[in-house]
Amino acid sequence: QITNNTLISYICCRLKEWVAIKSDSGDHTKWGEVETMLNMAAERIKKMGGKVELADAGTHQLPSGETVLLPPVILAEFAKDPKKATLCIYGHVDVQPAKMEDGWATDPFNLTEIKGNLYGRGATDNKGPVLAWLHAVESYQATKKEIPVNIKLIIEGLEEVGSYGLFKLIKKRRDSFFADVDFIVISDNVWATTTPALTYGTRGSSYFFVEIEGPKLDLHSGVYGGSIQEPMADLIALLGSLLDHTGKIQVVGVSDDVTPLTEDERKLYDNISFDLEEMKNVVGVKHFLQDTKEEVLMARWRYPSLSIHGVEGAFSDPGSKTIIPRKVTGKFSIRQVPNMDPPDVERKVKEHLEQVFSTLNSPNRLKVTATVGAKPWVANLQDSQYVAGQKAVKDVFGVEPEFIREGSTIPIAQTFQEETGKSVMMLPISGHDDGEHSQNEKISRYNYIEGTKLFAAYFYELSLLH
Amino acid sequence: QITNNTLISYICCRLKEWVAIKSDSGDHTKWGEVETMLNMAAERIKKMGGKVELADAGTHQLPSGETVLLPPVILAEFAKDPKKATLCIYGHVDVQPAKMEDGWATDPFNLTEIKGNLYGRGATDNKGPVLAWLHAVESYQATKKEIPVNIKLIIEGLEEVGSYGLFKLIKKRRDSFFADVDFIVISDNVWATTTPALTYGTRGSSYFFVEIEGPKLDLHSGVYGGSIQEPMADLIALLGSLLDHTGKIQVVGVSDDVTPLTEDERKLYDNISFDLEEMKNVVGVKHFLQDTKEEVLMARWRYPSLSIHGVEGAFSDPGSKTIIPRKVTGKFSIRQVPNMDPPDVERKVKEHLEQVFSTLNSPNRLKVTATVGAKPWVANLQDSQYVAGQKAVKDVFGVEPEFIREGSTIPIAQTFQEETGKSVMMLPISGHDDGEHSQNEKISRYNYIEGTKLFAAYFYELSLLH
Repeated sequence: QITNNTLISYICCRLKEWVAIKSDSGDHTKWGEVETMLNMAAERIKKMGGKVELADAGTHQLPSGETVLLPPVILAEFAKDPKKATLCIYGHVDVQPAKMEDGWATDPFNLTEIKGNLYGRGATDNKGPVLAWLHAVESYQATKKEIPVNIKLIIEGLEEVGSYGLFKLIKKRRDSFFADVDFIVISDNVWATTTPALTYGTRGSSYFFVEIEGPKLDLHSGVYGGSIQEPMADLIALLGSLLDHTGKIQVVGVSDDVTPLTEDERKLYDNISFDLEEMKNVVGVKHFLQDTKEEVLMARWRYPSLSIHGVEGAFSDPGSKTIIPRKVTGKFSIRQVPNMDPPDVERKVKEHLEQVFSTLNSPNRLKVTATVGAKPWVANLQDSQYVAGQKAVKDVFGVEPEFIREGSTIPIAQTFQEETGKSVMMLPISGHDDGEHSQNEKISRYNYIEGTKLFAAYFYELSLLH
Repeated sequence: QITNNTLISYICCRLKEWVAIKSDSGDHTKWGEVETMLNMAAERIKKMGGKVELADAGTHQLPSGETVLLPPVILAEFAKDPKKATLCIYGHVDVQPAKMEDGWATDPFNLTEIKGNLYGRGATDNKGPVLAWLHAVESYQATKKEIPVNIKLIIEGLEEVGSYGLFKLIKKRRDSFFADVDFIVISDNVWATTTPALTYGTRGSSYFFVEIEGPKLDLHSGVYGGSIQEPMADLIALLGSLLDHTGKIQVVGVSDDVTPLTEDERKLYDNISFDLEEMKNVVGVKHFLQDTKEEVLMARWRYPSLSIHGVEGAFSDPGSKTIIPRKVTGKFSIRQVPNMDPPDVERKVKEHLEQVFSTLNSPNRLKVTATVGAKPWVANLQDSQYVAGQKAVKDVFGVEPEFIREGSTIPIAQTFQEETGKSVMMLPISGHDDGEHSQNEKISRYNYIEGTKLFAAYFYELSLLH
């Protein structure tokens, strides 16, 4: 007979095996390890009775111009019952780079338990959650219970570098693999606090490059200073016109399309156990731009923001240099929210910058370019997935989940929603202090095990609503 | 009998010997070559009957903390006649770095004549002019004529790195070596046009560092954007408050002390053969901040200017990065003119920045620091040196000299004037297109030979006025 403790050791041991594979996708010459990891995951799914396809993800052109073959994407499914709803689970098994020298307290590729936390690269992002999904399926199989929903899996190995090839593959398989999918669920983010959460939105982003080109060559500020309209002065004037000191974007019309706040939505913020004072300490600021917890969270999650990241081409080294740089490029990005439209925002920003530039009577040349990272995403909380998710959290944790959004841009949810037309939910099990992408990444035993239970309960609650 | 051509070949050959010494002072481990060059110059002066002291210049602390012994400074003098005026000539025999790979058409350390130009590192800055002074003295000796003024020389080997030790030495020898000096002359700059020039002013400069420090750590603009008063936004607001788009400094009171333009001074600008259209082409701008030749030259020479050089700590690489930098340092400098007082300017700039910062209601910390490069310098054109210089130019070139200033900061003139209390003039013989500090530095045969004659004539004209 297997005791509970034996079982837990067993599933922690599995995570240790997965973490040991250095599936860092950042260096394409090491994608062999990513493929090893994908094969290991595929074998696991096959052992559980799943049908696995290692789908060709095509090729990718590197910045060097070289074209490389992409690692495959796992498309898997378990036996299908047409009467049941079909849930497709997304996950990834590649990781961020990690080296002891970066300041890890333990070997990042040797999962190490310290005081209830399992430390290792990929423990929480995203190997732990992927295994938790598989273990949730196995929990039904081991107890000889029928899995209440049909399960499909899409698991990739290049999430950390931008999911090359994935979005094309999703589009290509819309009418085959995704045709019978009802729900898509993603567990690749973290709770906002210590309370379990359902994530229903992400911000999109556009990145802007404001180039001002002036003289033929860099000039000496002693020789020419005072006679030249300096590109840097033009750029500072342009960048300075974007924001006021309260953080409000000054580009006319850019925030016009922001979905108005409803009373129902406002109420969601009341329940979030976010501690403003603690966050001030963590970040190290005397105050945020907003005064209350609710306002701060809304500013991060549901309102647009503009950040100025830096200047390329100007003097940026330590020390002093009396240069008038001939060409400078200011860089800023706008985080967009529903229902802002990135092309519309881009047009308004360009018009704004051109208008301000025209007032400078400058002999220099302005060029504004933009790249759209991803569109913003927001889900409908009346959707079955959110209702089922809320119930599952109550079943396992005995509390109401927090309904949260991500301020950062996670293209995957919006892409799934747009390309497949299916309902999408993000159901995190990772802790807010898990340090994904950082040194000493971890998942707690608690989150890993209770997260597995949450997923199992979620299958059940979702089946009741279908 | 020596023909004129033989003589010219001879003095060009001397310059070739000097240029061949790689007396680049930029790397202190190669100061041996600088000493070799100083010794070569000392030997030359001795052969001419001069008395030479290789004066100890003391030590210097490198940025690494290491203390190094400085190369000596040549203090030399020829036989003294108490009835004559004493002229002290300053020059330097170190050079900027130079490598074929930087884009030189010929070996920079092998003086090469092409179409009347002598190409080589140091040809114009400053080995050529130093030799021209020596040859002017020799021309009197060779023709058995008495030198009409007493000649002293101060020749250093660290000008290109900031004349370490020199200013202390000048101070120390004020009442000995400099006690009987009446005039100090420097030929270490260039004409403004193709017409010979006398230089009567240089701008000073102060370099400012505006540091804004915010959060404890760099933040992700997706996660925190909109809730944080970003240091970069504060900095842009501060930098944007410094200048208007006409180049006018917006710091209250900073330009108050600028010496008013007199009618006599204004007239000096009429005679300068500066071609505004040509300069637009050289620099590659459609227009300057001013419309006329006179205004452009005044903006560069006799009015203050402010240039923003760059930002340290922000994102400055190519590509895109969605960072909110925790600490950024903006860098700008102000070129100062008589009678601005650098400490007063520094105080006003700090007050201005603090005042603007206070309107931002920022939780971040502002720190402004400044370093004073040098004070501005202007000479009195009624001084005998300028009268003699003007006559000497007419004697040799048959034209009126242009009375010009340098927009850049050359501490040497102001330092000599301040430390010794003597009259100082800058008497350039280098062409405006000689490319000092650049690839393919040259001096034309014409400037080198006619410059030698100018110096000889100058000794004569100066003696008449004393």
